[in-house]
Amino acid sequence: MRLSRLGLGKHRKEATHMSNPLIYLAPIGSIIALLFAGYFASTLRRYSEGTDEMKAIAAAIREGSRAFLRRQYQTVAIFFFSMFTLLYVLVFMGYLNVFVPWAFITGGAFSGLAGFIGMTTATYTSARVTNQAKTSLNAALRVAFAGGSVMGLVVVGLGLLDLSIWYFLLNYVYQAMAEADRIQIITSTMLNFGMGASAMALFARVGGGIYTKGADVGADLVGKVEAGIPEDDPRNPGVIADNVGDNVGDIAGLGADLYESYVGSIVATCALAVAAGFGTVGVLVPLTMAAVGVLASIVGMSFVRTGETATQGELLKAIRRGVLVSGGIIAIISWFVIIALLGWENIGMYFAVLFGLLGGIAIGYSTEYFTSSEYKATKTVAESAITGHATVIIQGMSVGMLSIAPFTLVIVFTILASFVVAGGLTSFNVGLYAVGLAAVGMLSTLGITMATDAYGPIADNAGGIAEMSAQSKEVRQRTDALDSLGNTTAATGKGFCIGSAALTALALIVAYREQVFLIADDLGMDMVLDLSIVNPKVLGGLLLGGMLPFLFSSLTMQAVGRTAQMVVLEVRRQFKEIPGLLEGTGKADYATCVDICAKASLKEMVWPAAVAMLSPLAMGILLGVEGVIGLLTGALLSGFMLAVFMANAGGSWDNAKKYIEEGNHGGKGSEAHKAAVTGDTVGDPFKDTSGPSLDILIKLISMVSLVFASFVVQNALF
Amino acid sequence: MRLSRLGLGKHRKEATHMSNPLIYLAPIGSIIALLFAGYFASTLRRYSEGTDEMKAIAAAIREGSRAFLRRQYQTVAIFFFSMFTLLYVLVFMGYLNVFVPWAFITGGAFSGLAGFIGMTTATYTSARVTNQAKTSLNAALRVAFAGGSVMGLVVVGLGLLDLSIWYFLLNYVYQAMAEADRIQIITSTMLNFGMGASAMALFARVGGGIYTKGADVGADLVGKVEAGIPEDDPRNPGVIADNVGDNVGDIAGLGADLYESYVGSIVATCALAVAAGFGTVGVLVPLTMAAVGVLASIVGMSFVRTGETATQGELLKAIRRGVLVSGGIIAIISWFVIIALLGWENIGMYFAVLFGLLGGIAIGYSTEYFTSSEYKATKTVAESAITGHATVIIQGMSVGMLSIAPFTLVIVFTILASFVVAGGLTSFNVGLYAVGLAAVGMLSTLGITMATDAYGPIADNAGGIAEMSAQSKEVRQRTDALDSLGNTTAATGKGFCIGSAALTALALIVAYREQVFLIADDLGMDMVLDLSIVNPKVLGGLLLGGMLPFLFSSLTMQAVGRTAQMVVLEVRRQFKEIPGLLEGTGKADYATCVDICAKASLKEMVWPAAVAMLSPLAMGILLGVEGVIGLLTGALLSGFMLAVFMANAGGSWDNAKKYIEEGNHGGKGSEAHKAAVTGDTVGDPFKDTSGPSLDILIKLISMVSLVFASFVVQNALF
Repeated sequence: MRLSRLGLGKHRKEATHMSNPLIYLAPIGSIIALLFAGYFASTLRRYSEGTDEMKAIAAAIREGSRAFLRRQYQTVAIFFFSMFTLLYVLVFMGYLNVFVPWAFITGGAFSGLAGFIGMTTATYTSARVTNQAKTSLNAALRVAFAGGSVMGLVVVGLGLLDLSIWYFLLNYVYQAMAEADRIQIITSTMLNFGMGASAMALFARVGGGIYTKGADVGADLVGKVEAGIPEDDPRNPGVIADNVGDNVGDIAGLGADLYESYVGSIVATCALAVAAGFGTVGVLVPLTMAAVGVLASIVGMSFVRTGETATQGELLKAIRRGVLVSGGIIAIISWFVIIALLGWENIGMYFAVLFGLLGGIAIGYSTEYFTSSEYKATKTVAESAITGHATVIIQGMSVGMLSIAPFTLVIVFTILASFVVAGGLTSFNVGLYAVGLAAVGMLSTLGITMATDAYGPIADNAGGIAEMSAQSKEVRQRTDALDSLGNTTAATGKGFCIGSAALTALALIVAYREQVFLIADDLGMDMVLDLSIVNPKVLGGLLLGGMLPFLFSSLTMQAVGRTAQMVVLEVRRQFKEIPGLLEGTGKADYATCVDICAKASLKEMVWPAAVAMLSPLAMGILLGVEGVIGLLTGALLSGFMLAVFMANAGGSWDNAKKYIEEGNHGGKGSEAHKAAVTGDTVGDPFKDTSGPSLDILIKLISMVSLVFASFVVQNALF
Repeated sequence: MRLSRLGLGKHRKEATHMSNPLIYLAPIGSIIALLFAGYFASTLRRYSEGTDEMKAIAAAIREGSRAFLRRQYQTVAIFFFSMFTLLYVLVFMGYLNVFVPWAFITGGAFSGLAGFIGMTTATYTSARVTNQAKTSLNAALRVAFAGGSVMGLVVVGLGLLDLSIWYFLLNYVYQAMAEADRIQIITSTMLNFGMGASAMALFARVGGGIYTKGADVGADLVGKVEAGIPEDDPRNPGVIADNVGDNVGDIAGLGADLYESYVGSIVATCALAVAAGFGTVGVLVPLTMAAVGVLASIVGMSFVRTGETATQGELLKAIRRGVLVSGGIIAIISWFVIIALLGWENIGMYFAVLFGLLGGIAIGYSTEYFTSSEYKATKTVAESAITGHATVIIQGMSVGMLSIAPFTLVIVFTILASFVVAGGLTSFNVGLYAVGLAAVGMLSTLGITMATDAYGPIADNAGGIAEMSAQSKEVRQRTDALDSLGNTTAATGKGFCIGSAALTALALIVAYREQVFLIADDLGMDMVLDLSIVNPKVLGGLLLGGMLPFLFSSLTMQAVGRTAQMVVLEVRRQFKEIPGLLEGTGKADYATCVDICAKASLKEMVWPAAVAMLSPLAMGILLGVEGVIGLLTGALLSGFMLAVFMANAGGSWDNAKKYIEEGNHGGKGSEAHKAAVTGDTVGDPFKDTSGPSLDILIKLISMVSLVFASFVVQNALF
């Protein structure tokens, strides 16, 4: 029965097992990625960090960032240890296989490692960028982009490495098993590995996000708004915390986040390969595509260069060229990969990959339209700042809400087109596998996209160091130009993160349904699922799931607000109590603000994480599998919309402020600028804390549901 | 086949047709409601409108309001006429029965009439409230509440009247038909009547909402924020437009909105009665319950009175007493109604009604918790104003998002509990009918709840008249007290509007599915619907549907922003060009602002309305019935969440501002107050334009889908 329901034998090609040489591409790709990361890192060391003062500031930021990550990982370790124990209990009770807890732990560990390496590289890079900015814009870009490239390659390298290790290990352990059973047990174990990565990502994004925005908002509210001193001014006691925050939130958080997206989309598609009846080759496709993506990214990176006198527009073009070259390479090679692995009869899968790639690009352009001040949307936000704080907020929110429309259209088109073109109308599971492949296609350029994304916060930090070490105006202008360019690429990166999250979450939901059938089959249960949206259990799940992202955002936004308020009070206290601080003769006590942010963010990340982990379990026990699938779909739906809204509204406010600072509508210091700063400040937790955490949330709850599927199937109350 | 699928004969009682005397309760109830409305209106006339100046101001507001409504109705008439023609074309093509276009028109006409009568009463009441406020708070309350009662009774009276007329007419026309077929054709025709009401409500809410908030925001931005003159100051050229706005948006819009909710919940439940197999008696239940609610509301109204020296808390208690008495009466009488009509074996239906009633009360309390400054949530919003504009926005939004959680829990509980207790686990359609009854139960107290809701804007206008006619401070304080009380009751009313909308929309979605089966049956088609949420068509629909409320809110918020900006420019122009205006020697040109708002809001209401009407049709043609049901469910999901978020964030900002104005955190004029005004201004379109329109949107798209069901079944592309 299982084979027939899974459709095995229908679309199935001959078992190729370990004999297909393409299987070695994934580990090879991962090693090449890591080698190139090491190479880029070593070239970075050759540049100087600049004056002693710059070195000292960079060291302070590095110290603060590392100290936080250490504390954060300690806290998270407690959670991982408890979870590991719980999973082991489930292993002993027979709900899970013995590899699950280990897969869970390695997922978390590799994700944390990716964040740590990326952040360390970033903290070593920033001062070097500042120093290079003394020479030229292009020199600074090269260093910043090299730093970002290390991050991008580490993320994809570690992701592929972990996947390869588990794939080969499990294949070895279960080699005696029949192929269908073996591949099934391999993929379902690897899904659990995704849960570790997702949990770690959530902690990194939420904890880091609260830290960075608490510090940023707090420091700006007193410094920029009340005391009237510039951003990153060394007199501001919150300034080191702010810069530390950029590293722990925007870089370490981003790294863990994208690691999770990358790994999640691959394991979800692998799991669907079984149901679609492709067996081992079906698993090889996403792994191979990922490896191809890594190599294409490295090639693309070599295209990111400009002449010494490049303008900002030329820089952006250079970066774009790199991404497009990578995408083009993937588009060409995928054709051969699909034919080699799945044969001509499944060439539709190629188009699914292509739709994913193109969807990612479309989302990128649409993000740019809504968030860049070159287009109408953000111009209207800047204009609305003239009439005050309230209108800029209203306009920014309506731009953010409007931006949901093209995003949704692209995602819906990608889903339907991939499904149909791959033959979903005749075989449902084959169509859903194609949707998974579209997600893999969208994320296949991750190596280089992440490089373009991660260099933004590096440039931001470089600007901070320039300001604090009182560099010439020219240097600051160059780092600002890089930072502003980084805003555009970061917004694009965010958009494609959200898009791929929606596709991955969908693949995970379908994988969950398949797992439930397999579990019921193993137990000899006759499982009938009524997933109709008019089934009250599904509907109740949908509504409660739809509620989760709002609840989660509320908790994270309040956390940012509370942390910021603590920073505000501390900064105000120092301005009042430390003699001569504002005049530049006293010395600010940076450590206290760093400490406040660290403590607050670690405390504040517990509740949102608990909501994310416990809700699918509680729902499963209460309303069973139908309720859970409703919950996951509802969360996907509203999480996706809310994430797009928050990312784009935040991006638009940020750039509207920058647009005014360029001298429009009265420029810096005008009433319009004050209003725009309000918009930017509201946008901070939107785009850097709550919004990006939602991408993780919608995948994490699917992962948690998968891990506890067996338990829920056997213990649901209704 | 049809009978068995509909479950007829299973739960069916003997056909009672017109013989059951309870059928006369609905028309009797409607006439009693209208008589009492007339009686209250006539007692109002006995009070004086005060000084000549007050009379003149009231007349100006009345004139402006009427002029706008006239123009609005003319614009809407074009739409209704086109739609009528289109429906008639569909009649000739055989897609609809001949009564549908007429049902559509009467639904719209009665809804417009309810808005018109309510608004006229309100404009006659405000000055009388101001005048009575010279005597005492209680005297002012009595008049204001009488005005609100007229509105409440007109809405329920006209609703029941229209329903009764159609029910008796169709019963008469189709008397030769077999009962099952007759009741089916009656209920499906009456559903189309709901579409007319919904379309009218959307125009009224959106047009009125854009008018009122455009004027309000625009007048405040220049008056309060820039020129530093108080709200409603006669020197402000936007002040009459602002007060006109209160009438056309908050009263006429509210009336049309609640009329639609009321009628919608009843016709949806009637339609489900057929599918549930209850036939005629099943249709009688919601009609009878509504009639009982009308009578209970009238009794409850008589309990709203206090001593002459009542405090504000005592006034609130008096209003609460009225609502609770009505609810209690309904809870008792329903027991007998259910037994008389459905028999002991269906006593579970009684509990569904009860869950609806209690759910409404729970939602009311939870709204109060989040929006009243007596509780922690709004206190934190007020506190966050101390640190500035940005933090007050962040905190208000997180409070709004948090409030979604209890709302969702209540609604999910109501759905699941009603479904289960009525026997949904054994008969699906019976359970869904119970969910419809829960919606009717929740709305059964509408007569009195609406009275408590509508008197708020009346008091608001009374305050405006007091300010403009330079009454003593005491008078203004009393009207402010009424207004503030009205804020609490209005927020409660809004909450229960949203809650009932969610239940009604759900009932409509299920009714749509039933209609599709019936249509396919009539056509001899073998209709198989796969409504599983993993079906890509459903999923695509869910995502696109989820997008709609965001798109819609974006459009309406931008419309408010644009209108406000026009008012800002005009008010600024007048301040600059009219000599002595700010000093009180010149005279403001109110008419221009009134004209700007009217023109802008009529123009701006077209796009949002077009989105609402066309999207279900487009989806139906593209993805068929499965896509449409996905669309409706997705819109229900995100529309519900967004509506709760917007209503409660808006309410909380409003009251946080009032709390600061009471002297907390620095009081009026402090920096915290300025920040709180920003919050309040952002909240204006949230709670009075975009938010309430969403309740209508999610029902209107279901209604449109229902009307075009036959067309879509036969013409879907995929």
